[in-house]
Amino acid sequence: MPRYKLTIEYDGTPYAGWQRQADAPTVQGTLEQAIFAMSGETVTVHGAGRTDAGVHATGQVAHIDLSRVWRTDKIRDAMNAHMKPQPVAVLAAEAVPDDFEARFSAQARHYVYRILNRRAPPTLMRDGVWHVPRRLDSQAMHEAAQLLLGRHDFTTFRAAECQANSPIRTLDRLDVVRNGDTIEIFASARSFLHHQVRSITGSLEHVGSGKWTAQDLKNALEAKDRARCGMVAPPTGLYLLSVDY
Amino acid sequence: MPRYKLTIEYDGTPYAGWQRQADAPTVQGTLEQAIFAMSGETVTVHGAGRTDAGVHATGQVAHIDLSRVWRTDKIRDAMNAHMKPQPVAVLAAEAVPDDFEARFSAQARHYVYRILNRRAPPTLMRDGVWHVPRRLDSQAMHEAAQLLLGRHDFTTFRAAECQANSPIRTLDRLDVVRNGDTIEIFASARSFLHHQVRSITGSLEHVGSGKWTAQDLKNALEAKDRARCGMVAPPTGLYLLSVDY
Repeated sequence: MPRYKLTIEYDGTPYAGWQRQADAPTVQGTLEQAIFAMSGETVTVHGAGRTDAGVHATGQVAHIDLSRVWRTDKIRDAMNAHMKPQPVAVLAAEAVPDDFEARFSAQARHYVYRILNRRAPPTLMRDGVWHVPRRLDSQAMHEAAQLLLGRHDFTTFRAAECQANSPIRTLDRLDVVRNGDTIEIFASARSFLHHQVRSITGSLEHVGSGKWTAQDLKNALEAKDRARCGMVAPPTGLYLLSVDY
Repeated sequence: MPRYKLTIEYDGTPYAGWQRQADAPTVQGTLEQAIFAMSGETVTVHGAGRTDAGVHATGQVAHIDLSRVWRTDKIRDAMNAHMKPQPVAVLAAEAVPDDFEARFSAQARHYVYRILNRRAPPTLMRDGVWHVPRRLDSQAMHEAAQLLLGRHDFTTFRAAECQANSPIRTLDRLDVVRNGDTIEIFASARSFLHHQVRSITGSLEHVGSGKWTAQDLKNALEAKDRARCGMVAPPTGLYLLSVDY
């Protein structure tokens, strides 16, 4: 059966996350319904990562198998027509070899976490940022973040319900960049643990507000103890930017 | 009475525009209600520009007169607390001299118009862009835009209901910039006619799609005829960025 790679953008606000559920709207379910409407086929959309409720994507990747060959622009346009006006869109569809697996073939995943750091609450993109009114020192956050780079046991920054076999991950990038009132945290790794970016972000917020030193962050990592995590930042600020293959 | 300058951000989507109306939510009405809740005073919020329904602002400016002196951070925080969760926020409040007039003291107004130029519909910021699926030549748009710079009779690009005394305006900046799938049109002038930026944007879209040449745009301007306007772009893509004094 011909296999297709889909590049997908969504506003996670109205969804109970990526993963299909019987009684709640999900991104995976929305995509699968669009494929059924387009082709009459009941297929599974295999995503590169299962984003949580409220988390967004500008470059989620998934693969699907269809029973016949389709023009890729037809897949994109027909799925988008069927999903309208829901906030999920197929940016591109491409034919890929049978051994392409959106989840297991991924070489790197790139996320950004957006903080709006000002007294006034957000108005535009109010479901797309974490509002932190107290002033954060983004330079201190960036410097501390570098202590988390490389291969570590990230138990401290891992959700209790995380299903990964191992808490060991290799963090390749963790940059904290301020642009006016917005602070963006760019995180890249081959794969992430459940809630890892949000747990790291919540702990970096403690560094930015002066509650923690960089050494406190390092100690929390080395404790390998979930109870030492600063806090879990809300899902609204998180975006899956892209996946490399 | 002490006068204060307010810098205001809003998502225009749920509002019937800036100007107070008896039976519809407006930005001005929302701000005036917040001031009443804060101070017990019924005041008029005088804005620099009356944005239309659906138009956004990141830096609208207004002035208010209060009967006593307030701490400016208190004005900002109290108004924001009273407006929550509505998508209007006071970014800053400042004490200004009695002769400061948000509308008449303005030296320049800066707008941006955002076009999402790709096949797939918008998901994030779907009320914050104009979706144009056909590919636009942003370089051709930028070059044609330069023909509109300077002092002209902008009757062609003026709403029938525009109340300005004169159709003569001086356009100081009209830059068309592509960044990936987003095209931004930056427009600056001391003041604008009603629907002027949206009318120019709709006409530049004709240049970008190849329907019009740059000369067609110039001819439309010189015709001084509303019927020669290309189209009026939707309000969703327009943002009042800032006002200079």
